[in-house]
Amino acid sequence: MSDSTPSTPRGSADPFVPAELYTQVQQFYARQMGLLDDGFPDAWADTFTEDAVFQEASRLDEPLRGRDAIRDSSRARKKRLEAEEIDFRHWLGMLDVRPQADGSLHARSYALAMRTRRGGELDIFASVVCHDRLVSVEGAWQVAERDLHHDGSGRD
Amino acid sequence: MSDSTPSTPRGSADPFVPAELYTQVQQFYARQMGLLDDGFPDAWADTFTEDAVFQEASRLDEPLRGRDAIRDSSRARKKRLEAEEIDFRHWLGMLDVRPQADGSLHARSYALAMRTRRGGELDIFASVVCHDRLVSVEGAWQVAERDLHHDGSGRD
Amino acid sequence: MSDSTPSTPRGSADPFVPAELYTQVQQFYARQMGLLDDGFPDAWADTFTEDAVFQEASRLDEPLRGRDAIRDSSRARKKRLEAEEIDFRHWLGMLDVRPQADGSLHARSYALAMRTRRGGELDIFASVVCHDRLVSVEGAWQVAERDLHHDGSGRD
Repeated sequence: MSDSTPSTPRGSADPFVPAELYTQVQQFYARQMGLLDDGFPDAWADTFTEDAVFQEASRLDEPLRGRDAIRDSSRARKKRLEAEEIDFRHWLGMLDVRPQADGSLHARSYALAMRTRRGGELDIFASVVCHDRLVSVEGAWQVAERDLHHDGSGRD
Repeated sequence: MSDSTPSTPRGSADPFVPAELYTQVQQFYARQMGLLDDGFPDAWADTFTEDAVFQEASRLDEPLRGRDAIRDSSRARKKRLEAEEIDFRHWLGMLDVRPQADGSLHARSYALAMRTRRGGELDIFASVVCHDRLVSVEGAWQVAERDLHHDGSGRD
Repeated sequence: MSDSTPSTPRGSADPFVPAELYTQVQQFYARQMGLLDDGFPDAWADTFTEDAVFQEASRLDEPLRGRDAIRDSSRARKKRLEAEEIDFRHWLGMLDVRPQADGSLHARSYALAMRTRRGGELDIFASVVCHDRLVSVEGAWQVAERDLHHDGSGRD
């Protein structure tokens, strides 16, 4: 955020999206993150496109490329969490949706990552800004690109 | 979450609900939890059906059965919080709504429970998954069954 | 919250607002708070009316009066956060919207204030109840009055 930051961000005059679209995306995220948190890594992977790119700058050396890589990663994650007896929740909110010229959606949201070990205390440990490109595939939204920025990891 | 967990959860192909219904349920929860947090135990109890069942496996030995029991419990709760000078907030989000064949709704949401003692620090102490059965009574939604699962209390 | 608290709060029978209005206000807040969190104090100030009043009883000796005062305050805030290398997030939810007779909206929401210093831990440090009066100016919502109550600061 340098002194050359414009005083008005790009797209701030974009119209709001209709209620049907907005609530579809809200429901998409509630179900998508529920699949991960409930331990369904395969169904979770199916919410990404075949060629999806999953970036998490401060956590992954390289982006995950493709649904198979996302599935493998989330299966391994599930085993780790079960071994450590951890309940994990991903909470998204403050959703902003911008339709793009190609029919895809840019969805920005805030996310909190939290975990509770069995018998332990709730630990809300990360605030993350999530930028998704959502595309419609056979009538259902899928994530084609996900880009996660962890607060505290340095300016983007 | 055993190895026999299916790779796809039941109901993952259910259509999303229309915006009017989704935002009605969002508003229902904002007002319902607001009644509890603002110290209106009687009005809170009236958001449950006469024969509502309120389960909280890790906190209650027995479910609360009926609106009268819910009212008594929340009146006692209010006195405790006032004596301890605690502001309490229940924050629900990540809402997923599934209409049932009998006209009721299954609503799942994530909930955070948090408290602040007068002059003290914010303490967000529990992540909970809330499963409600909502029924329409004279045009208004009421909770007929609430089942709360606290993270960290063991697999359901 | 004395013994004279009525058992039912004012307005609890108000109808829910239509989905289009509810999701417009959700989107308004996602973008508005995003402007502040992303470091656009001027665009943030433009989401308030020229004569807006910004109250924060437990943090401000005097309300901020007018868009210019809000802009100055948020510019100073941005400099402080940059100097301290802090990512700040304002998360609003549990939104309740009540249309008023004069065409304005009373919007109540819960808010969490959180910060992460570069390389540091997430600190969710305040739970706040936000009461806004929103007015429509040339087709866009603006905040005419904002009244913030921090939990733990004493009964209102």
